[in-house]
Amino acid sequence: MRFAAPLPLASGARLADYALVYETYGTLNAARSNAVLVCHALNASHHVAGTHAGQPKSEGWWDNLIGPGKPLDTDRFFVIGVNNPGSCFGSTGPMHVDPATGRPYGADFPVVTVEDWVDAQARLLDALGIDRLAAVIGGSLGGMQALSWAMRHPARLAHCLAIATAPNLSAQNIAFNEVARRAITTDPEFHGGHYYAHATVPRRGLRVARMLGHITYLSDDAMDAKFGRAYVDGAPAYSTQRIEFEIESYLRYQGDKFSEYFDANTYLLITRALDYFDPARAHGGDLAAAFAAATAKFQLVSFTTDWRFSPARSREIVKALVDAKRDVSYAEIAAPHGHDAFLLDDARYHALLRARFGQIAKEVSA
Amino acid sequence: MRFAAPLPLASGARLADYALVYETYGTLNAARSNAVLVCHALNASHHVAGTHAGQPKSEGWWDNLIGPGKPLDTDRFFVIGVNNPGSCFGSTGPMHVDPATGRPYGADFPVVTVEDWVDAQARLLDALGIDRLAAVIGGSLGGMQALSWAMRHPARLAHCLAIATAPNLSAQNIAFNEVARRAITTDPEFHGGHYYAHATVPRRGLRVARMLGHITYLSDDAMDAKFGRAYVDGAPAYSTQRIEFEIESYLRYQGDKFSEYFDANTYLLITRALDYFDPARAHGGDLAAAFAAATAKFQLVSFTTDWRFSPARSREIVKALVDAKRDVSYAEIAAPHGHDAFLLDDARYHALLRARFGQIAKEVSA
Repeated sequence: MRFAAPLPLASGARLADYALVYETYGTLNAARSNAVLVCHALNASHHVAGTHAGQPKSEGWWDNLIGPGKPLDTDRFFVIGVNNPGSCFGSTGPMHVDPATGRPYGADFPVVTVEDWVDAQARLLDALGIDRLAAVIGGSLGGMQALSWAMRHPARLAHCLAIATAPNLSAQNIAFNEVARRAITTDPEFHGGHYYAHATVPRRGLRVARMLGHITYLSDDAMDAKFGRAYVDGAPAYSTQRIEFEIESYLRYQGDKFSEYFDANTYLLITRALDYFDPARAHGGDLAAAFAAATAKFQLVSFTTDWRFSPARSREIVKALVDAKRDVSYAEIAAPHGHDAFLLDDARYHALLRARFGQIAKEVSA
Repeated sequence: MRFAAPLPLASGARLADYALVYETYGTLNAARSNAVLVCHALNASHHVAGTHAGQPKSEGWWDNLIGPGKPLDTDRFFVIGVNNPGSCFGSTGPMHVDPATGRPYGADFPVVTVEDWVDAQARLLDALGIDRLAAVIGGSLGGMQALSWAMRHPARLAHCLAIATAPNLSAQNIAFNEVARRAITTDPEFHGGHYYAHATVPRRGLRVARMLGHITYLSDDAMDAKFGRAYVDGAPAYSTQRIEFEIESYLRYQGDKFSEYFDANTYLLITRALDYFDPARAHGGDLAAAFAAATAKFQLVSFTTDWRFSPARSREIVKALVDAKRDVSYAEIAAPHGHDAFLLDDARYHALLRARFGQIAKEVSA
């Protein structure tokens, strides 16, 4: 969907002449009341479910949750996946041409925030003729977008489902992002973010960034269970540079794969959007005040072994919602997989979402 | 101290014609029974206490613990700090000339293990005419050396004090080390570890490695207390590359400082020594069996907010020692500072060590 009107951004800049890529699943009902918006996190896109024709391995990133008969049932809901501006998966981003210069944006792509994304998504809904969503759902950074929807466009959603998220990043979260960014920006192939013009890619930096990210997505226990201290050759080879442990092999593989398809400028933009998100800031640190205008019914979910966005962070949100006298349910799921649990097919987690969407479907058809 | 006889290493290689730098504090008594060996961790050296003449800022890394009247009282003990082979602080390391080639070792410096270091330290004691130590003490990687002393040279120490350590690295610990190593080895200035010959230093990689290390030394809470989400300019400037948050400024400063003085090959060697340490491995994973020959009295200490080497890891060691029917005391200190707590002047921690060394001093003089 192409947008001619510039998008005003939190930074004061404007994004001109931009496009958002989106996918829809299921059928919008006559009342236009059964739409559910799915917000994506760092390494994801509009392609939330299903496969592309002739590409059986192209499963959407939340395919275990979304589809016919699944917890978010596309036989009952009209599901919308939308790729955010600044991404490298189709929507206008750093690799696209800046109409002001005729050259790729690169490092000059305007800094975007969670709030900017939510506003861009709201414009997409305008264009689709959808006034009000049955629900907005997202995990991690996607959960921040769901929360932001409830604060910025309260009349436009009935339910807000925010999974494995946080009211803002901790200093440690920001620190991990900054290490990843420094790995990228100090890669000589980065060229200050204008590597497209040099026909290079800062792959070394992207690899290190992704390896580090992966550690924070998995729980310590899950890593021990999956890799432990296993040596790739069964015993030490006494080398500082070759791969000795299975965990090293896994991380290097993940880093290599990521560096082949992800854009470095997008990585910087998305980690910054994470850093900046802090809706309480405009209210003197009072998160309950930030939710004062919200009218949605909230479902929060966290996972016990998630140390990136721990249950304590979800409880902060729940407490603020309770203080603000909002309608909120909260589930803390015992799951071993760390932050990644929100993407996995955990029976209790999916049963919870199935029940919740079952209720929402009844409200929609009522 | 120069050693003519080659040191046989766990890898099967030998370190020929090497030197160890050491410092001593206090006076060795007539019975040669009051010596305490202090083992250093990643970023430290033989310079454990005091200042160098005319350099008031050259305080040893454990100066708050070691000195006249301090918990490890140099009026009563003869304290020895020794720099391990492979280090960049004076003992034979990658920057030194390989006698076999006449060129700096660089990446060809033999891989060294905790056990190799302990054996090198034992040779230093031989040369100093010290048969038996009153105690060996170390924190983190230094604690691993203390444990290894008790296993490899049981007759040569009366007390083993192992602080904030672990019986081996978890998969997550290894993963963090590997990310740091990849940041270094993929820096174009690394030249496969032979950067001395290219007159370069892989500073970018060292910076990223150190920034990452720092995150794991501090607790999440300590970071939030010290930096929180404070912006360097009070508000977002909306930039992906400049410093926005105080925590970023701190980490970049730490990374810059470290890259000025630390050697990249040493970083690889020391993180590998951490990875390899696993005394239970030779006993089919049975840590109690690894302690079967130990006769020292053990003092273990951990800190509640240390997530790098958590209290649970110290408890594994304590359990193995109890199973092996060894003499062990264990203190879990409530301290907010994470892994770094072992270097800090915490009142309860220092009171504990003061009491322990007081007992040891009585045994020595009895």
